[in-house]
Amino acid sequence: MYTLHIGNKNYSSWSLRPWLLVKALGIPFEEVLHRFGMEEDWAEYRKLNASGLVPCLFDGDLVVWDSLAIIEYLAEKHEGVWPADSQARAWARSASAEMHSGFAELRSKCTMTCGQRVELHEVTPALSRDIARIDALWQEGLSRFGGPFLAGPEFSAVDAFYAPVVFRFQTFGISVSPQATAYVERMLAHPAMVAWYEDALQETFRDEPHEAELNALGRITADFRQ
Amino acid sequence: MYTLHIGNKNYSSWSLRPWLLVKALGIPFEEVLHRFGMEEDWAEYRKLNASGLVPCLFDGDLVVWDSLAIIEYLAEKHEGVWPADSQARAWARSASAEMHSGFAELRSKCTMTCGQRVELHEVTPALSRDIARIDALWQEGLSRFGGPFLAGPEFSAVDAFYAPVVFRFQTFGISVSPQATAYVERMLAHPAMVAWYEDALQETFRDEPHEAELNALGRITADFRQ
Repeated sequence: MYTLHIGNKNYSSWSLRPWLLVKALGIPFEEVLHRFGMEEDWAEYRKLNASGLVPCLFDGDLVVWDSLAIIEYLAEKHEGVWPADSQARAWARSASAEMHSGFAELRSKCTMTCGQRVELHEVTPALSRDIARIDALWQEGLSRFGGPFLAGPEFSAVDAFYAPVVFRFQTFGISVSPQATAYVERMLAHPAMVAWYEDALQETFRDEPHEAELNALGRITADFRQ
Repeated sequence: MYTLHIGNKNYSSWSLRPWLLVKALGIPFEEVLHRFGMEEDWAEYRKLNASGLVPCLFDGDLVVWDSLAIIEYLAEKHEGVWPADSQARAWARSASAEMHSGFAELRSKCTMTCGQRVELHEVTPALSRDIARIDALWQEGLSRFGGPFLAGPEFSAVDAFYAPVVFRFQTFGISVSPQATAYVERMLAHPAMVAWYEDALQETFRDEPHEAELNALGRITADFRQ
């Protein structure tokens, strides 16, 4: 049995990715949630995982501590993590890796907070470029591999990698092309996404740095959290 | 035959990684170098690769456009990209992925410029934390898997992933533990690293934004480039 350590579901975009993948593929796992800003949740954890980062997967005594490394670790053991078709797989890996190291402006200006709705004070040119690139990439995948998921007929790791963007587009009311909008709607209706979202709404603790960051970025128009 | 598109060898830390891996493993490839700031080098390239980023690998009509995606693509086809031992492989993938998405302060404050030597104006606390984490990670890998490379007896993708850090430590005169210092020296003597370094020194073009960035970061004490 795998154990997956994650951060708060409302905020932790990195944690969402492997969680969603194992959930969507029906791979059994246990989850351990560490609350940001609650030191007692992290002290013991750092003894298990020197990076101190979430997400982190334990498979017996084997530790894998980054979202993309976890996904490649799972891909060695389970079917369906990446698409079976080699062109689709190369595209899915490239798009996931671009997300993993890129889109800094989107990540800082549209921080993930699943349960809130926010009107941004400002859409910077760099943010517009990040959004346009994601829109183009999604359209490329959906057109080239036929949908309804980014790299073809089945949900795969590249959908998990862009899932935090889906929540961000909802939270910040970001407009994209009709094809990308339809993808956002499909993803928001996916059972694994619904499960994460419902858990996020149940969370009662708040991390002050996350809340303050959001207040600086825009006007909060709704908060559906407990 | 693979074609690997890269940026200037003096500056392009992302390009160094897959180039070094294919070179070290003896995988045949052709390289195409695009000079930063020379628009004529990039206009045609963007038609081939919509992300516009380097590095990018072409295998026939198949395009893989990110350093980590390229490495996983090659791992499907060639022995030795990752360590054969599953514990070492999981560690190597985690450490590589941590580099791929992290160490922002090191990447911005110690920008890669192989051929120069620089005295930093300031070592920020965030930069010290990045250096300490890399030092700890290298010591962990070298101790746990027995060296001389990070994940065991053979050069693998995790060494390629940290190779730009090796050049940065040389350029900025960063002090680390004796074990990490010995690793830096071994890597600088590796034939593939030597080949990249010699090519970088031969480059005669300069990218003004890179040169200006460096001037803002520290005092240039030596420049071994042509």
